[in-house]
Amino acid sequence: MKPIVMINLKTYKQGTGKEGLALVKTIAKVAKDYDVEMVVCSQMADICRHSQICACESKEGGCTAFDSLGIEIYSQTIEPIKFGSNTGHELPETIKEAGAVGTLLNHSEHRERIDHIESCISRAREVGLKIVVCANTAHIAEAIAAFSPDFVAVEPPELIGGDVSVSKAKPELITDTVDKVNLVNKNVGVLVGAGIKNAEDLRIALKLGARGVLLASGVVCSADPEGSLRGLLEGLKG
Amino acid sequence: MKPIVMINLKTYKQGTGKEGLALVKTIAKVAKDYDVEMVVCSQMADICRHSQICACESKEGGCTAFDSLGIEIYSQTIEPIKFGSNTGHELPETIKEAGAVGTLLNHSEHRERIDHIESCISRAREVGLKIVVCANTAHIAEAIAAFSPDFVAVEPPELIGGDVSVSKAKPELITDTVDKVNLVNKNVGVLVGAGIKNAEDLRIALKLGARGVLLASGVVCSADPEGSLRGLLEGLKG
Amino acid sequence: MKPIVMINLKTYKQGTGKEGLALVKTIAKVAKDYDVEMVVCSQMADICRHSQICACESKEGGCTAFDSLGIEIYSQTIEPIKFGSNTGHELPETIKEAGAVGTLLNHSEHRERIDHIESCISRAREVGLKIVVCANTAHIAEAIAAFSPDFVAVEPPELIGGDVSVSKAKPELITDTVDKVNLVNKNVGVLVGAGIKNAEDLRIALKLGARGVLLASGVVCSADPEGSLRGLLEGLKG
Amino acid sequence: MKPIVMINLKTYKQGTGKEGLALVKTIAKVAKDYDVEMVVCSQMADICRHSQICACESKEGGCTAFDSLGIEIYSQTIEPIKFGSNTGHELPETIKEAGAVGTLLNHSEHRERIDHIESCISRAREVGLKIVVCANTAHIAEAIAAFSPDFVAVEPPELIGGDVSVSKAKPELITDTVDKVNLVNKNVGVLVGAGIKNAEDLRIALKLGARGVLLASGVVCSADPEGSLRGLLEGLKG
Repeated sequence: MKPIVMINLKTYKQGTGKEGLALVKTIAKVAKDYDVEMVVCSQMADICRHSQICACESKEGGCTAFDSLGIEIYSQTIEPIKFGSNTGHELPETIKEAGAVGTLLNHSEHRERIDHIESCISRAREVGLKIVVCANTAHIAEAIAAFSPDFVAVEPPELIGGDVSVSKAKPELITDTVDKVNLVNKNVGVLVGAGIKNAEDLRIALKLGARGVLLASGVVCSADPEGSLRGLLEGLKG
Repeated sequence: MKPIVMINLKTYKQGTGKEGLALVKTIAKVAKDYDVEMVVCSQMADICRHSQICACESKEGGCTAFDSLGIEIYSQTIEPIKFGSNTGHELPETIKEAGAVGTLLNHSEHRERIDHIESCISRAREVGLKIVVCANTAHIAEAIAAFSPDFVAVEPPELIGGDVSVSKAKPELITDTVDKVNLVNKNVGVLVGAGIKNAEDLRIALKLGARGVLLASGVVCSADPEGSLRGLLEGLKG
Repeated sequence: MKPIVMINLKTYKQGTGKEGLALVKTIAKVAKDYDVEMVVCSQMADICRHSQICACESKEGGCTAFDSLGIEIYSQTIEPIKFGSNTGHELPETIKEAGAVGTLLNHSEHRERIDHIESCISRAREVGLKIVVCANTAHIAEAIAAFSPDFVAVEPPELIGGDVSVSKAKPELITDTVDKVNLVNKNVGVLVGAGIKNAEDLRIALKLGARGVLLASGVVCSADPEGSLRGLLEGLKG
Repeated sequence: MKPIVMINLKTYKQGTGKEGLALVKTIAKVAKDYDVEMVVCSQMADICRHSQICACESKEGGCTAFDSLGIEIYSQTIEPIKFGSNTGHELPETIKEAGAVGTLLNHSEHRERIDHIESCISRAREVGLKIVVCANTAHIAEAIAAFSPDFVAVEPPELIGGDVSVSKAKPELITDTVDKVNLVNKNVGVLVGAGIKNAEDLRIALKLGARGVLLASGVVCSADPEGSLRGLLEGLKG
């Protein structure tokens, strides 16, 4: 299994619209040089564009194919709804058809009700979306594991967007989360995030049992996103 | 000023993804035959596709132009956020860049906090999106008028999706709303919705002072959406 | 009409439980010396105690009477629900029976959906509770006036709990709010809050058309609540 | 350990204010005749009254003592806040001082965010309140067990308030929940609710490993609450 590197574009200017699309292409280009499963979490209205689904199928000489960039596009959230009267809500089927292959859920900037987490995981399964559920503590990761998502991503909120990585500041949180999650459900992988920026951060996380990392500002808001990402991915080379 | 006909696709199967795109094209085709300002409210992840923004600009021989259908695409909601750390939230700039020219807000299926309504209207103005705010009573429409949106759309929730139109069941609600809104701010137009289905419903609404109507299931879930929409638009011919 | 002075106990330690009851008694004692309508906003579980409703009616030799302190107890919020299955929600009837005569609503620390504000005002009327709805801007105050509450209380959030009063920092906000609210509904009084601390703050507010003020930390968290409150109430003497 | 019988008064008319107090006294009277730990979940503004805390300590000849009824009063929800600026929110300290000894949380009528559940349990511990967290499925019960509450109460929402008890309709849910919860944390007891009405329902629940039951309408809305409760408690006699 390849290590997973997820990049959350949030609503950063650098990750939005055309500027975001250029960044996604840079990320895809870099990913080709490493043995990694690269995931980008896009805003709802950007998924279609970032996944390179083309809407112009009816045009003569137009593009009809899915222009795969070789990376995976995820949404940043999802709702446990079905076809029907849900104005303004996020239907799993629509996210899927726009080109996403998975979704993030319960990020610290978008916490969810416990019953919604179970329902969202169930709906994601139904439509064939992978699901990564965020947790702010090892106990919340353990709780979420009971619902059998594909992954839980543990992120101590106080370190998100900061200068110190979870790998260096709280390595015991990684070990503790991996242990607790394994006890409940061995099939749920653990990702870690918050402050992850360089090769060393990635190396420590993988060594302590994480299946991958969740990034955001460290790459997206970098003055040199390609350089920052390449620097980090060097950590995959052991 | 042309009358406005807004069609809310909600998360109906017929309004989602490829099937939704086909419906949008049908709506655009019909709109060309009438003197009407036609608006479609699409799901977030469908805006790009429905507005025919093409993501394939880098392809050789690919399509680079905006394929305008001659109708307006709106989102179904918006949030009062700015560029930054807002995972899973709906940034006005992203909605705009995906091709939407406006947004619906505060639909009965997505009610908002009063302070958010003011902030969303302010953010929509900043990025150049039009905004239609829904209200379930004449007093709520009056209250919303204080924030100077482009339009308020009054919809009695008990008639939404039903067989009896607001035009026939509650004509006095239309008059009352137009009066109350005018008193607060003459520049805010009134749309009416709930059960609107045919030419007579549209004719009554316009005669009582509404600037247009808000539709959903009557067209979207119709066995013959084109026929249903044409039937309704005949009401524009006085 | 006497000027109104409302003191919001929030969940301050000094306003909670027994300590809160002692403070309420101090406030009541001070109020007797001034020509003022004094209101205290208590936490839900403290209303019964602060209103001096006695639960011990069945005891021999026990107290059976309502020990009126001569001030009014309000709750800090309310919900638009009725008798039935609403575990954990705040029924207007229960608040009334516990001894409250009114409620605050939509405080900046507890913002509400616009449709809930209308429904809460309607429910408060039904059970005979007065209602004061908070607003963070003059436009929100204007909007709320459409629902005919007893009062709107305008409080710029950036001044709440701070050292500079709204009377001194934004006197034009008071005038503007009074004008806008009057235009919509002359029967809705305006209260002002945020940073109100002394006689001068109160005097300015009343002079500019406010019917009273909304206080919190300035009295509740004062090292000398009685002194602080007396100092402020001197402003009533012109 | 005695079996636990919790009666949730919700916002039923029969459980509100004076009428509620009379019902609480009836429940207390019945409880004395059985070997049971009886708990009543009261509305916030009723806790003080139902727990018979007297506010009249300063009166001459007044009542100063806690008039213990021999049952436990719980609140129906709680919030993870601390002393400070939280207008309209429910502070654990206030609930405790009003006479409650525990709280219900995450009832199907008041679902919570997963991170709030962890924080509420932690705050309840700090102030010395017991905590019973509701779950709608065995997996949610398992998840909640990771946070070590005193009890989880599993209630299939479709059976709440209905005629068929969980004991008869879904006995395997009880067994499954007990197993899953035990695996995560053996110190967390399981209560079961939904449709529980008579001796047989109680007997089955206890036999399948539940530590007690959660009741509401079956007793509170009964034409003969005392008779209904006595009938149910006969189930304790094996």
